[in-house]
Amino acid sequence: MTHSSRRARLSAEIRAAGLDAMLVTDLINVRYLSGFTGSAGALLVYADEQPPILATDGRYRTQAARQAPDLQVAIERTGARHLVSQAAAAGALRVGFEAHVVTVDGFDALSAALQAAGGDRPVELVRASNTVEVLREVKDAGEVALLRLACEAADAALHDLVERGGLRPGRTERDVRRELEALMLDHGADAASFETIVATGPNSAIPHHRPTDAVLAAGDFVKIDFGALVAGYHSDMTRTFVLGPPADWQREIYAVVQAAQRAGRQALRPGAELREVDAAARAVIAEAGYGETFGHGLGHGVGLRIHEAPGINAAADGTLLAGAVVTVEPGVYLADRGGVRIEDTLVVADTAGQAPDLLTRFPKELTIL
Amino acid sequence: MTHSSRRARLSAEIRAAGLDAMLVTDLINVRYLSGFTGSAGALLVYADEQPPILATDGRYRTQAARQAPDLQVAIERTGARHLVSQAAAAGALRVGFEAHVVTVDGFDALSAALQAAGGDRPVELVRASNTVEVLREVKDAGEVALLRLACEAADAALHDLVERGGLRPGRTERDVRRELEALMLDHGADAASFETIVATGPNSAIPHHRPTDAVLAAGDFVKIDFGALVAGYHSDMTRTFVLGPPADWQREIYAVVQAAQRAGRQALRPGAELREVDAAARAVIAEAGYGETFGHGLGHGVGLRIHEAPGINAAADGTLLAGAVVTVEPGVYLADRGGVRIEDTLVVADTAGQAPDLLTRFPKELTIL
Repeated sequence: MTHSSRRARLSAEIRAAGLDAMLVTDLINVRYLSGFTGSAGALLVYADEQPPILATDGRYRTQAARQAPDLQVAIERTGARHLVSQAAAAGALRVGFEAHVVTVDGFDALSAALQAAGGDRPVELVRASNTVEVLREVKDAGEVALLRLACEAADAALHDLVERGGLRPGRTERDVRRELEALMLDHGADAASFETIVATGPNSAIPHHRPTDAVLAAGDFVKIDFGALVAGYHSDMTRTFVLGPPADWQREIYAVVQAAQRAGRQALRPGAELREVDAAARAVIAEAGYGETFGHGLGHGVGLRIHEAPGINAAADGTLLAGAVVTVEPGVYLADRGGVRIEDTLVVADTAGQAPDLLTRFPKELTIL
Repeated sequence: MTHSSRRARLSAEIRAAGLDAMLVTDLINVRYLSGFTGSAGALLVYADEQPPILATDGRYRTQAARQAPDLQVAIERTGARHLVSQAAAAGALRVGFEAHVVTVDGFDALSAALQAAGGDRPVELVRASNTVEVLREVKDAGEVALLRLACEAADAALHDLVERGGLRPGRTERDVRRELEALMLDHGADAASFETIVATGPNSAIPHHRPTDAVLAAGDFVKIDFGALVAGYHSDMTRTFVLGPPADWQREIYAVVQAAQRAGRQALRPGAELREVDAAARAVIAEAGYGETFGHGLGHGVGLRIHEAPGINAAADGTLLAGAVVTVEPGVYLADRGGVRIEDTLVVADTAGQAPDLLTRFPKELTIL
């Protein structure tokens, strides 16, 4: 799907919401709708046929022209304020803005710009949170292709890491992180998609652990949660290994998480209630007696952001959409002993009868190193 | 300076602003005031002796207790909303919030939480933007020590890169970025402090260029803007090299930028008007006839963020404070030919007679490779 067809979908949303135009200031949303990747920019999209305007500053003159050749580009330090003034001048009366992104100070500045612009009729700034995020929830073919590349880079890197003995007693969590991130670059990643989690032994019981100088030791669980970034798209995968023969408690919780993760994947059907997908995996863990230890949601959407809509958790409203790309990542964490999380990224199928498309293909059997 | 003494300084600011308490939601500010580095958290600090409260979610229970042992920690999914309700219950009537951080939706949620909390008297949420950022502008000794380590890691990495012939025709911008970032890790960095800029040939004329597969070629300028992250503190340095004997135009603009950068450093005196520091460097470039090509500010503060107060540019208000850590980074960019930027990070001295402390020590003479 081209950027212009994404904008056409947004224009339809804008019309449906009774707005004349919408100001997009979230940079990821600007990128999604325009292709522009600079660190300063805002986009004005109209409900009707008027051409959209991308505003950025002088640093990005060349880049904006190259990345968004089909857009009118305004080089204006005042960015979003310039755009709402333009909208007012073009006769817009109701202009949507991203109330989940625009700060209170930013809103004051937009209001002041409109006041200064004058005009016969007052322009209303209307809260229009998550309008673009909703569009982004279902991925188009180009996006799935990039997500697949990102997941493949991560798969290949983890494969290489294990193959060359990168997970062995004596190395530190930081060593492993560094090697894994370098391997992702070897396999075509632009960068790691977030700060790689490598957690060994008792640290594996900390759901979001930052790598330290802790040394991998025989008998440890080693939990690795990581991903690759390819052309702006993020992959996300967790695997947990055991160094040497596992203890009974390790075999047990690994099997529980594996079964919960399978149940979660099987529940990933278009139209499923999000909280029921969460519940499908959570029930397996609760039945095994570990419900208290699984304190986070089951999964989340992934795309231009590492965490995006939909959230899959016990409090989520709504249903899973065909073509959404989400993670399934249950865990069991035993404080001061160790924990297991297994996470995949998958594309929700078009019909309820179809299994989701698994993008992270590294094996999930308990790997004893 | 301990976290508690930083909070004491904030309490004094809160009292001076006529507030009873302040809600801190910017995560970097939360870290500065508490030591807590999780990705979800908020801090409530009172004007008086009441103990501050750190709110975070269940993922960070252990980490918060470890990183902020002197603080009361509330494990509450509702985070900031919980904290303003607590403030109301404690009798606060005027609660400051970070209006440059809290979104319009976030503000609505805080207001609703206060409404729900009830109470005899209405609690007012008062805009208190940049209160903590102002405190952060002057670095304490511990912060300067970490910034120095970060700058040393970057210096050493660039030295190694040049030493081992890492900048040579035939390599791509991406190759160089990758090697330089790996070398920073070797020298103790936790990560790169931002996405390394490596720009060769005509790309060096793009002030903020992302590394591509463009190949370094004889005669190119190679501009490298990069930094190391150490314990949350960022370094920032730019050097521009030339591959082989420079052309006359290359010698000329290099000399202009070098002179402008020297002038900027010499203007870095406590009490100096920020815009005059900018002007000191800008005048050198303008007098040489390249004023139009220097389209960005001269510098910025650097610390827990790569860009923070003060901004040093033509529109800046205010003066330079003793103990501030800032960059000086003029540039001349000739479209489609090439550009030069030279950037240092420095600590502003305590007295006007003292030179600033140069943290980035890699040589600035034109290096011909």
